[in-house]
Amino acid sequence: MTMTFDGMWSAIAPIGREASTGGYRRYAWTPQDAMMREWFAGEASRRGLDLVVDLAGNQWAWWGDPDAAVASGRPGLVIGSHLDSVPDGGAFDGPLGVVSALAVVDTLKAKDFLPSRPIAVVNFVDEEGARFGIACAGSRLITGKLDPDTARGLRDADGVTMAEAMGAAGHPVEHVGPDGETVARIGAFVELHVEQGRGLIELGRPVAVGSVIRPHGRWRIDLDGQANHAGTTRLKDRRDPMLDLASVIQAARAAASAQGCVATVGKVRVEPNGVNAIPSRVTAWLDARGPGEAEVRAVVESVGVRSGGLAVQESWTPETVFDVPLADRLSALLDNAPMLATAAGHDAGVLATAGVSAGMLFVRNPTGISHSPVEFAERQDCLSGIEALTAVTEELAR
Amino acid sequence: MTMTFDGMWSAIAPIGREASTGGYRRYAWTPQDAMMREWFAGEASRRGLDLVVDLAGNQWAWWGDPDAAVASGRPGLVIGSHLDSVPDGGAFDGPLGVVSALAVVDTLKAKDFLPSRPIAVVNFVDEEGARFGIACAGSRLITGKLDPDTARGLRDADGVTMAEAMGAAGHPVEHVGPDGETVARIGAFVELHVEQGRGLIELGRPVAVGSVIRPHGRWRIDLDGQANHAGTTRLKDRRDPMLDLASVIQAARAAASAQGCVATVGKVRVEPNGVNAIPSRVTAWLDARGPGEAEVRAVVESVGVRSGGLAVQESWTPETVFDVPLADRLSALLDNAPMLATAAGHDAGVLATAGVSAGMLFVRNPTGISHSPVEFAERQDCLSGIEALTAVTEELAR
Repeated sequence: MTMTFDGMWSAIAPIGREASTGGYRRYAWTPQDAMMREWFAGEASRRGLDLVVDLAGNQWAWWGDPDAAVASGRPGLVIGSHLDSVPDGGAFDGPLGVVSALAVVDTLKAKDFLPSRPIAVVNFVDEEGARFGIACAGSRLITGKLDPDTARGLRDADGVTMAEAMGAAGHPVEHVGPDGETVARIGAFVELHVEQGRGLIELGRPVAVGSVIRPHGRWRIDLDGQANHAGTTRLKDRRDPMLDLASVIQAARAAASAQGCVATVGKVRVEPNGVNAIPSRVTAWLDARGPGEAEVRAVVESVGVRSGGLAVQESWTPETVFDVPLADRLSALLDNAPMLATAAGHDAGVLATAGVSAGMLFVRNPTGISHSPVEFAERQDCLSGIEALTAVTEELAR
Repeated sequence: MTMTFDGMWSAIAPIGREASTGGYRRYAWTPQDAMMREWFAGEASRRGLDLVVDLAGNQWAWWGDPDAAVASGRPGLVIGSHLDSVPDGGAFDGPLGVVSALAVVDTLKAKDFLPSRPIAVVNFVDEEGARFGIACAGSRLITGKLDPDTARGLRDADGVTMAEAMGAAGHPVEHVGPDGETVARIGAFVELHVEQGRGLIELGRPVAVGSVIRPHGRWRIDLDGQANHAGTTRLKDRRDPMLDLASVIQAARAAASAQGCVATVGKVRVEPNGVNAIPSRVTAWLDARGPGEAEVRAVVESVGVRSGGLAVQESWTPETVFDVPLADRLSALLDNAPMLATAAGHDAGVLATAGVSAGMLFVRNPTGISHSPVEFAERQDCLSGIEALTAVTEELAR
């Protein structure tokens, strides 16, 4: 197992890595994404798995016949995660789950395990939404939670639509949309993921089981001003939206602190963004998450009121509770692994909301840092994660 | 005169105009800039003027022999301005001065005026510094105020160097640098420019004479943070440079107000600029100008101290007083036109600092707005400006 893990990890390490930052730029439907998908297809083929690409572009590598299992009333077990990244993301967020799932298949095949139901390794497309702004686009599309026409029309920073990007990557765009046949094949889904916080550091454990995904959303705040000369316009004659941006940033932090939430302004667009011009417009994106919907909504309202800007909701994910009997079973199986809530969205959460029995395993992150080039997990903890996922897979496909 | 003004104005109106904003994007050494330069060369040729391109790329259209005038001890009179723009700039900032100067030549030729010294119309290259960050690059280079190796190595947002951009535009980059021969030909320089403030509105006059350019500069402030996940990182574990940006913006405004200066954060760069990532770094550019150097330096120091960032000076222009006898003479000639100070930099200021007798005429701006698509001047005021520049040219070349 360790051999195949190390080999796979080395194979994908250079793909989409930006030399200047050390971070990854693997955005959906780009050449970098295509290289990751080709690598996945090759790994499936090498193991004799049947590769299926669904209507949204998610890749499924099946060990066994998924449709016979559906017909017999006991559909398959799916393990895996995603291979795309945020801008300058780390190596682990996503790929650790896919590589671990492939390593599980190797381990089970090596010990001549005979699954009682088909097993798939999945690579969900466009989990991060880094390019088109909607996270978990692949799982949302197949479960009908993202309208296909809306998706096709989403534009990246260069004005390229998702439809154009899919087309350029060779994916047939006309059939993108709900894919009931694919969803019906998922009897259960377990996603292994690097932890994106410090929970396991404090607990002193290598692996945890996911309990809930806290409610979270994204809002866009447009702040209008009046473009003018930076040198010759008196302060009293200015309508400078940069001052409103300062209010947004500070209001978000203050309201999050008051409500027990987290709030982040991580993306800003300034027009025209000239050193000697007062901006005509500043757009800020607010990411807010918290223990409950009321708290998160209070943060967003406070930011809008205090900045004078209008917060337009771009996405909203209510609290998602993972399948409780499944989570309990996983925890018991894994030496009473601790349960962890998370404020990060995942494809497992989208599937859970769609009625799929879904669960997650988290692998310890020794710094708590994620969405960063320095994101890390110790090799020994990664191997513990694969051991745990192997045990879970054996249990659920015995 | 009105015919040629209207015709020239229409001819350049579409060049480099961005349909989505209505503003101009005419940046140095781009295809849009090349179209403006070709247009200028054509206008020179049509009038029988001799076109000379100096070592930095500035265009000079001479009526008469500049070198004979230098030899005789009474070098030429230069009128004109620049044809490039800030991002989404207006139609008037720059082109009004060049078009007016060409219209002056038409008027003088139509009345068979015989100049006692050669007259040139100039188009200074890269006045705005929109692409490579250094304003008045053309006039600074020929007067030795910008080091040629520094200039050649400046990079635009895409990483293209000024040397590469000049080369791509067909300008020989190896000789870029101080051009004493060109500077020696300038006996006097008068630059007509749209006003970039509300002085003439309040005075109820169409034309003013420039008195001084107030001290001004640009600073870059790097704010470092720690990239991390926007959802899973506790507030207390964050190092979020966006909060420092808010401090920079507010400190700049407060200090400018206290010091009687203006200060602007018009340009911001966020890395990696992802909705769900705490930024690893935010860079802000500060433009500050005021009545004196002490006040401006106090603003910059206050911003640095209050934000925790280090302000790196990218450019600094001390107070520039235009040739006082020339300014008095222009004012007297123009029905005692009012004298106006400005906080905007101009090539006329760079030449004045280099010891050239230089002056400016300002044309009323009915909104005070500049560096914006809505920048405007009434046609009647533009014609008044041409009349004034004609009178000045006759006076100085009689």
